Amino acid sequence: VERLVIVGGDAAGMSAATVARRKRDDLEIIALERGHHTSYSACGIPYWIGGEVSSAEDLVARTPAEFRDKHRIDVRLESEVVGVDPAGCTVIVAGPSGSYELRYDHLMLGTGAVPVVPDLPGVDASGVYGVQTLDDGEAVRAALSSAPSRAVVVGGGYIGLEMAEALVRRGLSVTLLEAAPEVMSTVDPDVGAQVRAAMGGMGIDVRIGEGLRGIESDASGRVRRVVSEGGSYDTDLVVLGLGVRPNTRLAVEAGISTGVKHAISTNRRMRTLSHENIWAGGDCAESFHRVLQRPAHIALGTHANRHGKVAGANLAGGYDTFEGVIGTALTRICDLEIARTGLSSREATEAGFCYEAVTTESTTRAGYLPDAGRITVKLLAERGTGRLLGGQIVGHQGSAKRIDVLATAIWTDLSVMELAEVDLSYAPPFGPVWDPVSIAARRTAAALLS
Amino acid sequence: VERLVIVGGDAAGMSAATVARRKRDDLEIIALERGHHTSYSACGIPYWIGGEVSSAEDLVARTPAEFRDKHRIDVRLESEVVGVDPAGCTVIVAGPSGSYELRYDHLMLGTGAVPVVPDLPGVDASGVYGVQTLDDGEAVRAALSSAPSRAVVVGGGYIGLEMAEALVRRGLSVTLLEAAPEVMSTVDPDVGAQVRAAMGGMGIDVRIGEGLRGIESDASGRVRRVVSEGGSYDTDLVVLGLGVRPNTRLAVEAGISTGVKHAISTNRRMRTLSHENIWAGGDCAESFHRVLQRPAHIALGTHANRHGKVAGANLAGGYDTFEGVIGTALTRICDLEIARTGLSSREATEAGFCYEAVTTESTTRAGYLPDAGRITVKLLAERGTGRLLGGQIVGHQGSAKRIDVLATAIWTDLSVMELAEVDLSYAPPFGPVWDPVSIAARRTAAALLS
Repeated sequence: VERLVIVGGDAAGMSAATVARRKRDDLEIIALERGHHTSYSACGIPYWIGGEVSSAEDLVARTPAEFRDKHRIDVRLESEVVGVDPAGCTVIVAGPSGSYELRYDHLMLGTGAVPVVPDLPGVDASGVYGVQTLDDGEAVRAALSSAPSRAVVVGGGYIGLEMAEALVRRGLSVTLLEAAPEVMSTVDPDVGAQVRAAMGGMGIDVRIGEGLRGIESDASGRVRRVVSEGGSYDTDLVVLGLGVRPNTRLAVEAGISTGVKHAISTNRRMRTLSHENIWAGGDCAESFHRVLQRPAHIALGTHANRHGKVAGANLAGGYDTFEGVIGTALTRICDLEIARTGLSSREATEAGFCYEAVTTESTTRAGYLPDAGRITVKLLAERGTGRLLGGQIVGHQGSAKRIDVLATAIWTDLSVMELAEVDLSYAPPFGPVWDPVSIAARRTAAALLS
Repeated sequence: VERLVIVGGDAAGMSAATVARRKRDDLEIIALERGHHTSYSACGIPYWIGGEVSSAEDLVARTPAEFRDKHRIDVRLESEVVGVDPAGCTVIVAGPSGSYELRYDHLMLGTGAVPVVPDLPGVDASGVYGVQTLDDGEAVRAALSSAPSRAVVVGGGYIGLEMAEALVRRGLSVTLLEAAPEVMSTVDPDVGAQVRAAMGGMGIDVRIGEGLRGIESDASGRVRRVVSEGGSYDTDLVVLGLGVRPNTRLAVEAGISTGVKHAISTNRRMRTLSHENIWAGGDCAESFHRVLQRPAHIALGTHANRHGKVAGANLAGGYDTFEGVIGTALTRICDLEIARTGLSSREATEAGFCYEAVTTESTTRAGYLPDAGRITVKLLAERGTGRLLGGQIVGHQGSAKRIDVLATAIWTDLSVMELAEVDLSYAPPFGPVWDPVSIAARRTAAALLS
């Protein structure tokens, strides 16, 4: 019987496993997960920390038992793959009761990403947490039970901002340190500044331009103070939100093809470029970026699920392709919704695009309704062609999901002139008669002509 | 000096006037409006009746004085055009102090629509209202001040449903009569049934399959009772929401080109097909329907604004085109959001399309968040090509604006297979990891293949 071995029991790996099972009843499927959970929503961790979600189980989409019983997938927890031998088609597993070798016919790598941990004194102190896995989340929840009063969050990206808000909701005094001149490097600084203002309004002490220098502990090895380039902050706990990098040491050692940031390089069917029977997906793999027209590494659960679905279909003898990414993402911070797609100004410039960037202010409902909120739409369009290159939205309730219109427009290579003509919906509870997206497209088109 | 005469001082007419002014400083512009207001949001009337908006002034985007002072547009209220002579390039105006003739070089017709009033006994009784103009809205507001207790709304389209909700909010007992087997004929009956259920939950007595037979009045001519095909209902006031038809008697009499429902036929620059110097836009004009590939009459403020902008640019010597409609619309009824774009099942069948219609249930937020609401997405895709033909969405907060993604997909001729691959946004507060739109597209694609 043919055997599929999955390395990593989260989004990419388990999507591949279930899709492969659906296509091939005869396949033996073994999923190896070094942690204690499968298929959970890492994106939901801040809501669990913040108290909106009450238990870790709520974040688990499917338990190992469900995979075993419903899909006949042999999920093995606390089982870390420590070696891959592509020539011999085997992996070495360090399991809960010892190491063993496992033969595979098809290998799916869904090893995910690991948090970036700076090489600085004290980062391994007790009380310093990542927020990458459910196990990390459980550690933070446990720390909160001893009623700490102060926290420092290091890093002003999505996860850092979400964690800062979650900790404030739990009653802590929170300082957020960001080394860059503005928070949220995935959006332009003028958009990031709006987010920072909202965080300030919620009582979060946001320090920009202050990189981490070190973490000081007390005699018992417990964190006591964080030292930055701009000051020092007494604290009871530290959350590191400095982003992630592909977890591909295993793949690199095995000679599997890697590219950007050492993420695994695949073709459009998610097959590795180096090995016929090795597939990869999720945070450990590259994705083709449709606007940049080259591989990129973007660690998002949406891509991981798609990657896994594509890999699973193909390794089971079907045909499915991954059509690429355009960097769509969104979040909610305090009472602000923030979203982006395509290229930011920095990315567009680095890629060599000549473009106009136009920012438009509007409202989320008809201006005469009492709870009309503010919405800012920033569009980037290429000179000459007018092609929409990127969009950023920040605003109150009802703002952010409009990003999907911009994503669809970028996906289909629409110009801002064309986008301005699209028959978008209108009713007073949902916007002004010209939707903010239409107004933004029209103004950007006008800027291209002037 | 060249003179532009505008007939009708609402969205289409005044958009044309302001855009023409922007392009041509030398033009004399006279706008003739038979009512008492210019450029108001008719869509906002139900919110004014319901109390969310406190005064009629809030619904007026620009007053006659603003048009005069800022844009040098000579707005004349209570001035009805009663005749057009295209050969002599004149109109006859019945103004507040008598009739007069007015020469024009360019004529813009923005005469709007008139409510459909059934030819039945009693429909002209006192206490029977339309909700087409601000003057209509004022009459309903005045009626509410005498604390009526019962209302009957005739017609279960957008305006009827919105008015029924508004009147319930004002404390009235409301019965809604709809002659068709289901409310909201612009969506499929299964979607309409969800809306009807929500209205019932709000205490509105919705009667389907009950056409109006007549209205009975007391001796003073005041409405007392409504008689339908299914019963009779005592009432203090009646609101007619039976839709509108193009207000084009004037145009027809003048020999101006008309088409669907006698709406004025124009080319893509909003010039009438019959006269070089006569333009039209808004509810009195046709629009090209991109999916049906023929002219249609869809009375919406969004189109009226676009029509006017295009006509104004062209008549002032510029170049702008109206790129057509796809029937996008949305509303909020009680706690439900409802949206549609493209073709309904009935429209697709009538147009000769062979298609699959697939309904998908999902949530507006990640399922583990406490306030995840329900969302239903129904997609229609053409057999063979997979082209998305139509979409309908009904659900709780955060549902309806997703229609704009479907509208953009239909606009760009995307297939459901392609739509399923688009990089849409995800974060737990905004949806499950596969957006409801993505799931719906994927399932519809699967149905096409099975």
